[in-house]
Amino acid sequence: MEDIQNKKGDFDFKIDKVGVENIQHPFYIKKKDGNVIETIATYSMAVSLEKYFKGINMSRLPIILSELYTDKWYMKDYKNDTKFILNRICNKLESQDSCLNINFKYFLPKNAPVSQIQGLMPYECNIEGTLNKEKNNFDMILTVEIPITTLCPCSKAISEYSAHNQRGYVVVSIRYNDEIYIEDLISMVEENGSCELYPILKRVDEKYVTEKAYENPRFVEDIVRLVAKKLYEDDKITWFKISSHHQESIHPHDAYAVIEITK
Amino acid sequence: MEDIQNKKGDFDFKIDKVGVENIQHPFYIKKKDGNVIETIATYSMAVSLEKYFKGINMSRLPIILSELYTDKWYMKDYKNDTKFILNRICNKLESQDSCLNINFKYFLPKNAPVSQIQGLMPYECNIEGTLNKEKNNFDMILTVEIPITTLCPCSKAISEYSAHNQRGYVVVSIRYNDEIYIEDLISMVEENGSCELYPILKRVDEKYVTEKAYENPRFVEDIVRLVAKKLYEDDKITWFKISSHHQESIHPHDAYAVIEITK
Amino acid sequence: MEDIQNKKGDFDFKIDKVGVENIQHPFYIKKKDGNVIETIATYSMAVSLEKYFKGINMSRLPIILSELYTDKWYMKDYKNDTKFILNRICNKLESQDSCLNINFKYFLPKNAPVSQIQGLMPYECNIEGTLNKEKNNFDMILTVEIPITTLCPCSKAISEYSAHNQRGYVVVSIRYNDEIYIEDLISMVEENGSCELYPILKRVDEKYVTEKAYENPRFVEDIVRLVAKKLYEDDKITWFKISSHHQESIHPHDAYAVIEITK
Amino acid sequence: MEDIQNKKGDFDFKIDKVGVENIQHPFYIKKKDGNVIETIATYSMAVSLEKYFKGINMSRLPIILSELYTDKWYMKDYKNDTKFILNRICNKLESQDSCLNINFKYFLPKNAPVSQIQGLMPYECNIEGTLNKEKNNFDMILTVEIPITTLCPCSKAISEYSAHNQRGYVVVSIRYNDEIYIEDLISMVEENGSCELYPILKRVDEKYVTEKAYENPRFVEDIVRLVAKKLYEDDKITWFKISSHHQESIHPHDAYAVIEITK
Repeated sequence: MEDIQNKKGDFDFKIDKVGVENIQHPFYIKKKDGNVIETIATYSMAVSLEKYFKGINMSRLPIILSELYTDKWYMKDYKNDTKFILNRICNKLESQDSCLNINFKYFLPKNAPVSQIQGLMPYECNIEGTLNKEKNNFDMILTVEIPITTLCPCSKAISEYSAHNQRGYVVVSIRYNDEIYIEDLISMVEENGSCELYPILKRVDEKYVTEKAYENPRFVEDIVRLVAKKLYEDDKITWFKISSHHQESIHPHDAYAVIEITK
Repeated sequence: MEDIQNKKGDFDFKIDKVGVENIQHPFYIKKKDGNVIETIATYSMAVSLEKYFKGINMSRLPIILSELYTDKWYMKDYKNDTKFILNRICNKLESQDSCLNINFKYFLPKNAPVSQIQGLMPYECNIEGTLNKEKNNFDMILTVEIPITTLCPCSKAISEYSAHNQRGYVVVSIRYNDEIYIEDLISMVEENGSCELYPILKRVDEKYVTEKAYENPRFVEDIVRLVAKKLYEDDKITWFKISSHHQESIHPHDAYAVIEITK
Repeated sequence: MEDIQNKKGDFDFKIDKVGVENIQHPFYIKKKDGNVIETIATYSMAVSLEKYFKGINMSRLPIILSELYTDKWYMKDYKNDTKFILNRICNKLESQDSCLNINFKYFLPKNAPVSQIQGLMPYECNIEGTLNKEKNNFDMILTVEIPITTLCPCSKAISEYSAHNQRGYVVVSIRYNDEIYIEDLISMVEENGSCELYPILKRVDEKYVTEKAYENPRFVEDIVRLVAKKLYEDDKITWFKISSHHQESIHPHDAYAVIEITK
Repeated sequence: MEDIQNKKGDFDFKIDKVGVENIQHPFYIKKKDGNVIETIATYSMAVSLEKYFKGINMSRLPIILSELYTDKWYMKDYKNDTKFILNRICNKLESQDSCLNINFKYFLPKNAPVSQIQGLMPYECNIEGTLNKEKNNFDMILTVEIPITTLCPCSKAISEYSAHNQRGYVVVSIRYNDEIYIEDLISMVEENGSCELYPILKRVDEKYVTEKAYENPRFVEDIVRLVAKKLYEDDKITWFKISSHHQESIHPHDAYAVIEITK
């Protein structure tokens, strides 16, 4: 059977990435508390292709996922485990470069602030890794999206009573050099909103969050600066990018802000 | 050249709808003020197919759109013009039934409440029509999505100060027997939110909308009931369905409510 | 603390549905092979509200989800278990009507047709249930979306060689009166496409699926009729709606067809 | 009335971007043939904020859009006109940096290859510009997404007959130093697919496109290399990034490839 992909020749250009994307697949990950949760991820996996090769053996990429699943593999150390998969991709596809993107939902139990009733909070997370074996270059970015309440300081200052508020989404991406958990990034953000969000709130809790948000007004500018401060002061973090996106309750469009810092 | 679609036989089942969908195409529509605006729609167009026909002449559906475009056709009377296209679909495809869905953005100028600065408000609209030529059955549903501010009455009542508020989306669908404009549905909804949304607000306006929302707290239940009252009292409307969807600023999920009434 | 929601009065309109939507939450479900899988669902949960009540106790809805999670509850019998949750919603919210929508991804192992290499196929599923306790009316619709290969019979017939083909999505919804599994619906659809899709294919498999699709050309009309025949002949199914949506490889838009039958 | 945004102090961090996003608004643009078309865009607009300022005057951003609309402004020269708006943003918001993103649909008439029947093809386009006034740094990236037919060379080579094919989306982004039109990028891509897509095809056309695709098999690797060659040879283009995304008709996931080159 002819093997066109493995034909050699001069195909003019090296390809930076070639692979598969939009793979829906289960994903197991260990939480900070040590428990492993089963969630679902959207994966993309790719390699580079030198200009003297016609194509890659694409089917080997989903086979790697399938093997990890059969082995009941789960992610415990984000960086080492990402590197482990990247190495396997390089080896199986005989390429010097590999990249991997895992986009997944993550759930954490969260208690209402007064009644203490527990529910599960969903967070969107992303792990993006790249490896160049030749140069031994490995890079990984961890991203978490955290929803918060944001209450407008201007609206509060100029109005006789009340202030417009809304759901905002803070997206934090980091590079880091020591152990950091998704849970840590969530804490750094949630303590800096006008208030945290909760999956379940009784009336005593609703009074609490309403008043707390009013006591902590935050512009979109304030949110990214406050979170930047937390990330800046954490020595384990070497680079970060924060953006915050507020679903303005008085406008049909959103407000946003971005800070990116390499330490 | 063989014509498989037009083969006759017994293919077991009549098909209710067969056609094309997700067609992106310009759409011209006359506003209540008489001006024609050019916007973009996502179209679906289909016919029924009797069980003794193998297939339809599918290419005739986008050709109809193309002809309307060449003729610089625009929609002036929603019902008559929808029926006009449905008739053309039936004729061109030699079918007794046709259906048409036009999903489009609609823009209206809107002034800030105090400063009167003007911007454009976007609304999502939908026209869905069906025709059975044999029985002379024609049906059309007009749908408009209107974003509003909603401020929680419970949060206001139980808190020392402030109240959580957020953007909500009210979706109104109607059947009607006399002239009604998209603009009319927008008015009926916007006057019943805690406050309207605006594309542009200066600080004097922001004070106004913050205080107005606080003075007009509305549960999701209140919104659908207040809008239902307006639609119920309008004799031109024979059926309606209202839903409201609030992006709760204190939760990661949304609140919603639905009322559907045939008069 | 004031309890506005529980105020009584005449609020003009009964509300058909009021509740929460877009809740992201884990969902456990037993497969046909007896194994329980953990997946993620988007839930909506609602009740009706009589016109003499101001509002519902909305927080009780996510609390129900949270309790099921704590109890490690999983769905085994789609109908009975949906009814079980609907009853709990009615009881907790003191309402006569409840509705529940669970939208989830479902994964099944699938072997390549020749090499037999196994991977996981993802399917989108939906369970929608409604209950009226007073009249003891319970209704449930099970929906599964199955991706398939579709190859155009016209293109094959008129061309010297080849035929355009593409990914299609068949969406099957059923009401039924005896045990049926998601797995059964998937089989009924997959055997009627031009070919099935696979998560992993080696070259021997790719030859197989390419040739099989060419030997089984199917219009969008054929797909819905063939699947209709299977569903029609299954006595356990009392009502069904099938639609097929093909991402035409020769057009920027899609082709679709729909058959709905109450037996 | 208090003006919190304009408060001065030391707020620790400069903000890279702060502004508005997800603004839906009409957008007028001149085509290569000289005609101006009215389409719809999603805008984001932002500025940088020095660390000694509390906040920006956010309402001035949508006001700029509103003024352009009132002036019946349309884009004729992508680069100069983007720079013109960026300058206006800097001036109105008294900032050294501004950025602008305009995401819009673009329609071009396209004739069927044999029957010559004309329809409109939709393309997604994006213009992203940034300006630093101090350093007189201006940058603009033009992006166009072009759908094509892709037919798999491996499937063709190993199968007795036929080959799997599907819709692919090629996304081309460029920086350039002389006049280039969206129309030019579309041509460069469409001539390098297995075949072009068409809004309308009669049977004579369908035969043509089916056979043409079979005669021009292309891996995702081939597509990005062929388009890279075209862009590389065009001296007006100084940087480009191409990606191609194929909705594999034999898999539930997609194949993709990326080439990025700075000349």
